Amino acid sequence: MNRIRIAIDCMGGDNAPEAPVQGALDALAESDEIEVILVGREADIQKALTGKKYDASRLSIVNATEVIETAEHPVSAINSKKDSSMVVALKLVKTGEAEAILSAGNSGALLVGGQTVVGRIPGVKRAPFAAMMPTASGASLLVDTGANVDARSDMLVNWALLGTIYMKEVVGRENPTVGIVNIGAEEEKGNALVKETMPLLRETAGINFVGSVEARDIPTGGTDILVCDAFVGNIIIKMYEGVAKTMMNALQKGFKATPVAALGALMSLPSLKKSLKDFDVSQYGGAPLLGVKGLVMKTHGSAKAKEFKNSCLQCIAFVKNDVVGKMQAALAEEKQK
Amino acid sequence: MNRIRIAIDCMGGDNAPEAPVQGALDALAESDEIEVILVGREADIQKALTGKKYDASRLSIVNATEVIETAEHPVSAINSKKDSSMVVALKLVKTGEAEAILSAGNSGALLVGGQTVVGRIPGVKRAPFAAMMPTASGASLLVDTGANVDARSDMLVNWALLGTIYMKEVVGRENPTVGIVNIGAEEEKGNALVKETMPLLRETAGINFVGSVEARDIPTGGTDILVCDAFVGNIIIKMYEGVAKTMMNALQKGFKATPVAALGALMSLPSLKKSLKDFDVSQYGGAPLLGVKGLVMKTHGSAKAKEFKNSCLQCIAFVKNDVVGKMQAALAEEKQK
Repeated sequence: MNRIRIAIDCMGGDNAPEAPVQGALDALAESDEIEVILVGREADIQKALTGKKYDASRLSIVNATEVIETAEHPVSAINSKKDSSMVVALKLVKTGEAEAILSAGNSGALLVGGQTVVGRIPGVKRAPFAAMMPTASGASLLVDTGANVDARSDMLVNWALLGTIYMKEVVGRENPTVGIVNIGAEEEKGNALVKETMPLLRETAGINFVGSVEARDIPTGGTDILVCDAFVGNIIIKMYEGVAKTMMNALQKGFKATPVAALGALMSLPSLKKSLKDFDVSQYGGAPLLGVKGLVMKTHGSAKAKEFKNSCLQCIAFVKNDVVGKMQAALAEEKQK
Repeated sequence: MNRIRIAIDCMGGDNAPEAPVQGALDALAESDEIEVILVGREADIQKALTGKKYDASRLSIVNATEVIETAEHPVSAINSKKDSSMVVALKLVKTGEAEAILSAGNSGALLVGGQTVVGRIPGVKRAPFAAMMPTASGASLLVDTGANVDARSDMLVNWALLGTIYMKEVVGRENPTVGIVNIGAEEEKGNALVKETMPLLRETAGINFVGSVEARDIPTGGTDILVCDAFVGNIIIKMYEGVAKTMMNALQKGFKATPVAALGALMSLPSLKKSLKDFDVSQYGGAPLLGVKGLVMKTHGSAKAKEFKNSCLQCIAFVKNDVVGKMQAALAEEKQK
């Protein structure tokens, strides 16, 4: 089988170029199914590679002189910086020189570039970001976590379909369940968007719809795919992060409060760490942009080598199981009805 | 000074009538500034009072034969069950026989009843529920947490004004800050509602607007009032609850995993408990319905005596500082412009 070629935007994110380069090397070491194409300022990349050991036959560098900054306006950045690491990497996917692009750079630009450079699958109204979210009973896929803040009901139905294919083919869930994020379980609950989307989800073939899921039950888990507009999706992801961080700080304060507590902490920490590991978002790596003609994977701006590595490894099943082809087929079928 | 009379819906919530009755007695014992009017089926209330000690001169019972159930349709429940504990208690506020009503019953019904029986202050477009949310740096008031899921920008501005008066007069914050819940700090971020509301908040007098607040920063705290539509507000509150609960479960699992960890847990728990106490929602009691001509206070369905007590005590500053009068004055001023 041909190896899966991943174009890595080495200039994106807070820890560029060290973290993307190191993550790529770690992924190469862990799987021989991939090749990596490091895209960015060649001198910077070479410097980050200095002294490292890797299989050079599966690594190449593509020079790109420009960098899209985090604060830049997405559309104008994609249009004006044709020689940026992000645009060059996106083009490698468009021309078929790579199957996937991975970037920790400007999310808006990646969203625009993914749709305009790589292009949407016919029938996809708007491409959403999807993120694997840790829960107490395995991960859930949350769609949309950052692309379309004022979504319409037909988009949410679209995303439920795309998410179903992703969870089946990439994560290996059989007949994955779909829920809609809501503020109550009763039929009459919800805002206008949710009320309009609910009956559509119920009647669309290929979606195993289970109804409303309250935010309180999201961390418990149990539903494979959760759909919502990107404003709500972002709130969910960020609350997860914020509450967990604040609680950990409070715990640490508590552990340090008295000498006895500190000793107790030493004794219980190894076991605590193991049990909290399930909530470590970095294990899941990236958030794919669903519904484009290739794999566009976003990892967060502060991602470290571990997230880059895990994101690279996530690409394997996506490409091997021809998720793009299956999405194309499902949407063509949907259209014929 | 006249005592503050609180009508307590003794039939609402999962723990009725014991929890509301006990909470009322505990509040009576803690403050001599209040009187309580227990509303509901007299026999049930008498039974719950049996064997308890309390200052009978500050407690009265008003019989109400009907009960509004949690699953009932709010409008029809308020219209058809005129002799329900909730409607009778609301009427006591309307007629001036009580200054406040406290209920753990059907939120939708209380929302409808608060606006139709007690009535809105002129200039209030829609009454929102406001909730005190624990954060690492003191509580924030989140408005709206449950009333208006498809809100308009003029409503959010209205709520910012009502929230400001509440935080100043009831919680004692000087020149309280107002933020809008958003998905990023940059000016161009947000959905249509947020983008429309932002300039209005900036130009409205009497609001100390500080801009966008990301969900990630909500648990850290620092902003006195946070405005958002009730769909988003509900997601925030429920994520708070869900993530905290799931993490505590994971911790407990970790503490029990090995004998050494368990011993460590014993040693560190007293100190941990103290440091996590700041995140205990029950300390704040209830969520007031802002903008009505009296104090309508909701506490959650599973509230125990402690929440009822704290909600009663919360009523004191609200009434003493004439929050309703100040809201009326502020809105009349706003209207003249």
